[in-house]
Amino acid sequence: MTQTTIDTVALTAELVRCPSVTPEEGGALLLLEGLLTQAGFACTRVDRNGTANLFARWGTKGHARSFGFNGHTDVVPIGVRADWTRDPFGGELDAGRVWGRGACDMKSGVAAFVAAAIDFVRDTPPDGAVILAITGDEEGPAQDGTIALLDWMRAEGEAMSACLVGEPTCPEQMGEMMKIGRRGSLNAVITARGRQGHAAYPHRAANPLPVLVRLLDRLAQHELDQGTDHFDPSTLALTTVDVGNDATNVIPATARAGLNIRFNDLHSGPSLTEWLHGMVQEESAGTGVALEVDIRVSGEAFLTPPGPLSDMVARAVEAECGLAPKLSTSGGTSDARFVKDHCPVVEFGLVGQSMHQVDEFAEIAHIEQLKRVYSRILQDYFA
Amino acid sequence: MTQTTIDTVALTAELVRCPSVTPEEGGALLLLEGLLTQAGFACTRVDRNGTANLFARWGTKGHARSFGFNGHTDVVPIGVRADWTRDPFGGELDAGRVWGRGACDMKSGVAAFVAAAIDFVRDTPPDGAVILAITGDEEGPAQDGTIALLDWMRAEGEAMSACLVGEPTCPEQMGEMMKIGRRGSLNAVITARGRQGHAAYPHRAANPLPVLVRLLDRLAQHELDQGTDHFDPSTLALTTVDVGNDATNVIPATARAGLNIRFNDLHSGPSLTEWLHGMVQEESAGTGVALEVDIRVSGEAFLTPPGPLSDMVARAVEAECGLAPKLSTSGGTSDARFVKDHCPVVEFGLVGQSMHQVDEFAEIAHIEQLKRVYSRILQDYFA
Repeated sequence: MTQTTIDTVALTAELVRCPSVTPEEGGALLLLEGLLTQAGFACTRVDRNGTANLFARWGTKGHARSFGFNGHTDVVPIGVRADWTRDPFGGELDAGRVWGRGACDMKSGVAAFVAAAIDFVRDTPPDGAVILAITGDEEGPAQDGTIALLDWMRAEGEAMSACLVGEPTCPEQMGEMMKIGRRGSLNAVITARGRQGHAAYPHRAANPLPVLVRLLDRLAQHELDQGTDHFDPSTLALTTVDVGNDATNVIPATARAGLNIRFNDLHSGPSLTEWLHGMVQEESAGTGVALEVDIRVSGEAFLTPPGPLSDMVARAVEAECGLAPKLSTSGGTSDARFVKDHCPVVEFGLVGQSMHQVDEFAEIAHIEQLKRVYSRILQDYFA
Repeated sequence: MTQTTIDTVALTAELVRCPSVTPEEGGALLLLEGLLTQAGFACTRVDRNGTANLFARWGTKGHARSFGFNGHTDVVPIGVRADWTRDPFGGELDAGRVWGRGACDMKSGVAAFVAAAIDFVRDTPPDGAVILAITGDEEGPAQDGTIALLDWMRAEGEAMSACLVGEPTCPEQMGEMMKIGRRGSLNAVITARGRQGHAAYPHRAANPLPVLVRLLDRLAQHELDQGTDHFDPSTLALTTVDVGNDATNVIPATARAGLNIRFNDLHSGPSLTEWLHGMVQEESAGTGVALEVDIRVSGEAFLTPPGPLSDMVARAVEAECGLAPKLSTSGGTSDARFVKDHCPVVEFGLVGQSMHQVDEFAEIAHIEQLKRVYSRILQDYFA
């Protein structure tokens, strides 16, 4: 084999040059498949409904010690091209940074764990398996990405015994934070239907607004919880109320409200759905106003309790970055919400400040640090 | 004088043929001025800012017994011509009715009091004055109509000692209702300004919605009063709430609400304004959300307490229609809200069902009945 060591920064730049805006594969997974195959990984393309995904395993299938990395090569759109001062798909190296869409989120993370895995199995072939589950749909609907990989693994008897998701996790300083879970998220749209009428004769109408604002006030005032050991308190945010009635002398027939709940491990989609339905029923009873609630749970809360996996990752981070990472459950969603049903999962990656922004970048020094963190984790896991 | 008796129905039809959509005079006031001048009334056109108004007095200026009628010859637009099955400005007599825009509201009322006044001063010239204050802007902004007439009267030393407004007052049956006052009306727009943010981090934003819905809930729950002897309870109707935020993960910066208060004689524009400002201040304090309230009072509550004037009108109505009219303060606004600052005022007129609608009409029998009611009132007042 001619290419024995992967240059993580060069690989990041090469991946950035693949225009893999969801759901385009853009050449990114093909590139990785080539490198990994050459390094002795058994690679399988797990494509579903037009989404490309790559499964790669070095070592024995179904081994009890199978460490996995999860990440994605797809990226969000660039927005307005003129707003960029760098070529979004140029993979330019300048001023100590790799520039372009996906440089931070998360082609650098993928490059780092691919490089670490290839080095590791070459230099110290482990008794066990190293698995890379890389998806082309994390930024999109995510229904045919990591879910498809996990479905396929289950069907094929493939398994990870622990997994690290390589998403950016550090708010400002490299190494300051890792994620051991995430809050869940629920959206509700409440529609109140009454009977239109003249504002001068409210008793002849059934105004949906007093019923709706009373309900919304109760919901907004309600303390869902005070937080748990590893989670912030759950939050409920009213996001909109709309009627669209310009006539000052008319009572409207219909009003609509939206709200978002971010919930910790004291709640679940079903428990909150039941609570909301109960509140809606209480407030509509006897009012002549019908309240309907449409609920979408986009993710359940989950936690990988602090233990051997998080300890191991924290040790590696502290050794390379000089900071003991905070074990956090904050932030938006990631594919860890799917992986958690498969095996213990934590997340550690770069500083995420430039994610989804114009002139996205990753610090070259951080990419190299990240690769060393992932290498240490592999060495520690298989020691 | 050749024309000694006015045919009230024919005069109504002739007035309907004058296309006097606000602010057009349309020939209606000119027609009346001619008739009244011929009958011995001193007529003055009191025009202001393009609005035509007519003041007519028979008898001594400033006499302590000066009975006045107030009404308008302007009409609302016809809307979609194709929706009419009758000529809107045809003044057609058919099926026992006069048809056309203004037949009901209120060219028939004007014709009835003009005819009654001309007959009365000719047949039984009173010791006192009969005044007709007729405006061409009641349906429009109403700033240069009856207000202009009253301003001019004050300046000229002209005065009414009692006044009857000839607007339609009967819901279904001729004679069933007269008006002795009206509720006031106030519109408020409340704007809540906070700070936008991500729905996952409500503590970093200042969501205007919880503050606004709490305020609206308190306002909607508040019992303004339980009604008074002659007024229904005051009402507060929430008419709209609007944000227009379609992003489920975004806390909005601004929310806006509208409400309408119809208030009785226990309140006033200033007292309600003070109450609203107090509530707004209480609910915004310490929230980081600024609440602004923009208030428009479109009319104060007023009452002409039951007494000699209402008794006299009720007697005349009962004698001609066979029903004791209910003394009501219900319904929308009229120029009585201006006249009440000048002298005691009550309202009595036709059945108002077809007002502002297509194929507006007045029953010929009702028009003749109305003229006889007005004649009785004049006879009674000067008896």
